[in-house]
Amino acid sequence: MSKKIQILRSKFKKHNIDGYIVPKNDDYFTEYSNINRLKIISNFSGSAGIAIILKNKNYLFTDGRYTIQSQLESGKNFTIINYDEIINCKLFKNLVLGIDPKLFTYNQIIKFFKKNNKIKFINKNLIDEIESKKNINNFQFFSLNRNIVGESSSSKINKISSYLKKNKSDYLFISAPENVAWILNIRGKDGPNSPIPNSRLIISKSKKVFLISKIQKVKKIIKEKIINSNELIDINDFPKKIQKLKGNNFIIDEKSCSIYFEDIISSKFRISKREDPTYLLKAVKNRIEIKNMIDTHILDGVALTKFIYWIKNINKKKITEVQAQNKLESFRKLNKAYLYPSFDTIAGSGANGAIVHYRANKKNCKTIKKKDIFLCDSGGQYKYGTTDVTRTVCFSKPKPYIKDIFTKVLKGHIAVANTNLKKDYIGKKIDIRARKFLKKSNLDYAHGTGHGVGFFLNVHEGPHAISKYNEVKIQEGMILSNEPGYYKKDNFGIRIENLVFVKKINKNIFFENLTLVPIEKELINYKILTSLEKDYLFKYHLNIYSKISKYLNFKERKWLASFI
Amino acid sequence: MSKKIQILRSKFKKHNIDGYIVPKNDDYFTEYSNINRLKIISNFSGSAGIAIILKNKNYLFTDGRYTIQSQLESGKNFTIINYDEIINCKLFKNLVLGIDPKLFTYNQIIKFFKKNNKIKFINKNLIDEIESKKNINNFQFFSLNRNIVGESSSSKINKISSYLKKNKSDYLFISAPENVAWILNIRGKDGPNSPIPNSRLIISKSKKVFLISKIQKVKKIIKEKIINSNELIDINDFPKKIQKLKGNNFIIDEKSCSIYFEDIISSKFRISKREDPTYLLKAVKNRIEIKNMIDTHILDGVALTKFIYWIKNINKKKITEVQAQNKLESFRKLNKAYLYPSFDTIAGSGANGAIVHYRANKKNCKTIKKKDIFLCDSGGQYKYGTTDVTRTVCFSKPKPYIKDIFTKVLKGHIAVANTNLKKDYIGKKIDIRARKFLKKSNLDYAHGTGHGVGFFLNVHEGPHAISKYNEVKIQEGMILSNEPGYYKKDNFGIRIENLVFVKKINKNIFFENLTLVPIEKELINYKILTSLEKDYLFKYHLNIYSKISKYLNFKERKWLASFI
Repeated sequence: MSKKIQILRSKFKKHNIDGYIVPKNDDYFTEYSNINRLKIISNFSGSAGIAIILKNKNYLFTDGRYTIQSQLESGKNFTIINYDEIINCKLFKNLVLGIDPKLFTYNQIIKFFKKNNKIKFINKNLIDEIESKKNINNFQFFSLNRNIVGESSSSKINKISSYLKKNKSDYLFISAPENVAWILNIRGKDGPNSPIPNSRLIISKSKKVFLISKIQKVKKIIKEKIINSNELIDINDFPKKIQKLKGNNFIIDEKSCSIYFEDIISSKFRISKREDPTYLLKAVKNRIEIKNMIDTHILDGVALTKFIYWIKNINKKKITEVQAQNKLESFRKLNKAYLYPSFDTIAGSGANGAIVHYRANKKNCKTIKKKDIFLCDSGGQYKYGTTDVTRTVCFSKPKPYIKDIFTKVLKGHIAVANTNLKKDYIGKKIDIRARKFLKKSNLDYAHGTGHGVGFFLNVHEGPHAISKYNEVKIQEGMILSNEPGYYKKDNFGIRIENLVFVKKINKNIFFENLTLVPIEKELINYKILTSLEKDYLFKYHLNIYSKISKYLNFKERKWLASFI
Repeated sequence: MSKKIQILRSKFKKHNIDGYIVPKNDDYFTEYSNINRLKIISNFSGSAGIAIILKNKNYLFTDGRYTIQSQLESGKNFTIINYDEIINCKLFKNLVLGIDPKLFTYNQIIKFFKKNNKIKFINKNLIDEIESKKNINNFQFFSLNRNIVGESSSSKINKISSYLKKNKSDYLFISAPENVAWILNIRGKDGPNSPIPNSRLIISKSKKVFLISKIQKVKKIIKEKIINSNELIDINDFPKKIQKLKGNNFIIDEKSCSIYFEDIISSKFRISKREDPTYLLKAVKNRIEIKNMIDTHILDGVALTKFIYWIKNINKKKITEVQAQNKLESFRKLNKAYLYPSFDTIAGSGANGAIVHYRANKKNCKTIKKKDIFLCDSGGQYKYGTTDVTRTVCFSKPKPYIKDIFTKVLKGHIAVANTNLKKDYIGKKIDIRARKFLKKSNLDYAHGTGHGVGFFLNVHEGPHAISKYNEVKIQEGMILSNEPGYYKKDNFGIRIENLVFVKKINKNIFFENLTLVPIEKELINYKILTSLEKDYLFKYHLNIYSKISKYLNFKERKWLASFI
């Protein structure tokens, strides 16, 4: 039994609890975080999970992706159970479980624990008492100019104000820091993959703004007059400040408003739970954001194209998956505008390609073999833009049945790219287009076809997506990924992913590719492509050539020309 | 003295004349004609000239292009005089000169002869009496479908009717057969280079239409109900028919309405002389015409590109200019849509390239030498579209000063192509852009920079042009040539000619290239190009590649790829 677990258990009596729940997320509910209390207590390093430490037994809930990894990392002290079984779980029946109300929303508690358990809120985080939070930083928030973001903060606040008037509410509580970033045109360095400024915001009907943040982080933007010091609320003053606000109604978003904040606000205001309107506003990019994304994808396309040329021509030199992904980042780093990966690179060769969220590490990663096909899903944060691209390449003549499957995935990818959005304007309809060709052969893939993408923000953002149930209308200016795939367990993985944006010319509304990276032609069976699909590929590669050839060396350029 | 001249002179007494004037044009005043009375009487085969046969002396007026040719062909019987000197010419002072009133407009007579001469109209053509017109044909007029021409005849007639109402006139006399062709959506086979239907048209304010033509030629279009038989006037019935028309006013175009027609119409109506509004209406192409022209230029681009690849790779095989132009036409003929040249090809190597209207013939044409630069100006009539393109190519490393001049011509060509037509929207302003770079080196060229181009009609048409004095506003849908050049007498000639059309997107109005033929890169000094000019060339050739690469063989395609 680890020492940390022992210390944690020793606190149970004081708080009158039988156990303590530790989630993966931090108090900002962002996808990526530098804080990982779950790992502190359980040693589990996966991207999703919940640990429950009882007096004499510990459980770790995580999903199928992490079955083996969680056993290896945490199996000694924890019983590993599939995530889905947490609902209606009777293992803790009638036990009093402690939680930190900053790390949970009411929704989560109701969904996972309320039915059979007694939950006790403990305002001091017990893990932090054992090991003070790592990676606490005082990185300053910074502002982005109008020519980068394309819309002033006051214009955005006006929109929120109109929304509040329309919905007869006095205030909106913006609990998701990426939405704060968008509204104030600021960014930060608080996450590993996104320029998230960890903070929250209150906007009133009358356009008053209060930024809830650590004071140390906002010195720069106060100096720049992005925000006045009287518009700032230190998190410790939040309860007091709420009491002083006039009015009756507050809108909160139940997906990212923690119990802690909900309780404070509801002590004074009538609460209405709605999706933060910022999500949809932020999803529709303006022309400047699109222009910056287009420019960023030229830089990223150059790096990826150089990388693919390099990896296809290393010949007998053996490299591992980790070496490959490091080389890819070194190509991205050649560009001064590159900052850091927008998510952890998935570089899986052969059977590893079939692991949808594979993460190669130095210790156990594979050497890429000539017979393998190699799936590489990566992205970058740039000044200014965000990329996300997957290519699957081969190094020797592939087996015909693999070519056929790759070509079917490609046909789905092209079908999505060619969607007439006047006709099919919701994700669930487009998702069908992506799977159609695989389905004819009784094949499918167990993930969505596309996610929304932020502008110099999260690589995954809503509310729009191309997936089986998404009904958000796809609008001009939205950015999405288009990433059908196919995965044969213990064998190989295929995914072809481009980012696209939605363009409108006259009455036509359609996707236009942002991603500029050639698609492995040696994996294509041209015989099963229609002439329209072949024409799409020709024009796609011609467009790539037109945008990036001048940044390539002679050999790379000649190779790229072979795609047209 | 030739026998024909003797016969002609023998008729002078009967008609009471001292001489007879024979122009190059036929009674339709078209640029190209199968009838050439000037050649019959003088043996001169050039494209412009006027012969005057007196009782004991003959004169041939022609321009500088034909100084040598006219001496060779006609010097024995004619004194050759420069065309410009015909004005105020005192050689025929007080002589009575006969003319055929169908072959002249009043304007011509006034400009050239009225001051010093007495002109007598003779209704029977004296040359036809000697040698009956050659190439008289009964080729049927034919109609073009709406999906070819894009606008119905009735819509066009409505526009003319509105024009007549606005100008308070009862009738418009359309004397130019290309305008008849455009209004009725018909074509014919009456010229060697254009599908001209030799005919004239009357349109009334109340949208009545009368086609003046030989009855034999209209059987097909009457059958197709393009025109009713009661809307037809045989040319011999024209005087009678005019007397029967009700109303007071007739608009005629003095540039193509002959004295013969003007006299008949003015015997009954008050005449007002204006430019036929059809010229401007016809100059502004609709979307379908533009689409057809775009498609035609793909076919023509393929032929030209194959030709240039061929001629640059014949190596030691010696070919003549005529062999080259025949080979070029054989590439055009590979396409079923090709009909015939839109004008006589100018294929001049070395010093012949400096002769602006050079015409190679089997007897005296040059063998193309490796050291020569070769200028080739040609075009085609296709189903359905008209092309006109000039390229200048080399076969060995050119002299630096020739490269520099070619590059300056190219800079002018690019400057025209990149014109912001919101700012510079008249030909005379654009003409300055074309010459600017040459002028810095005190160089220039003695022709206009661009002419209007018809849609499956004349390769030269007005009213718009890029030339020193043209002030017609360049509008969306117009088609023009962009053909700056430079000619060093007895040495070499350079011309780079593309057709362009005028495109409007949102508020931007600009030229877009129709012509898709690579520009000789070995004649370019890239050091004196700006990065914008280099970018223009890259995108231009990329566009060519995108449109025509699939029609090329492997070697041609690889060569074309070397331009991008």
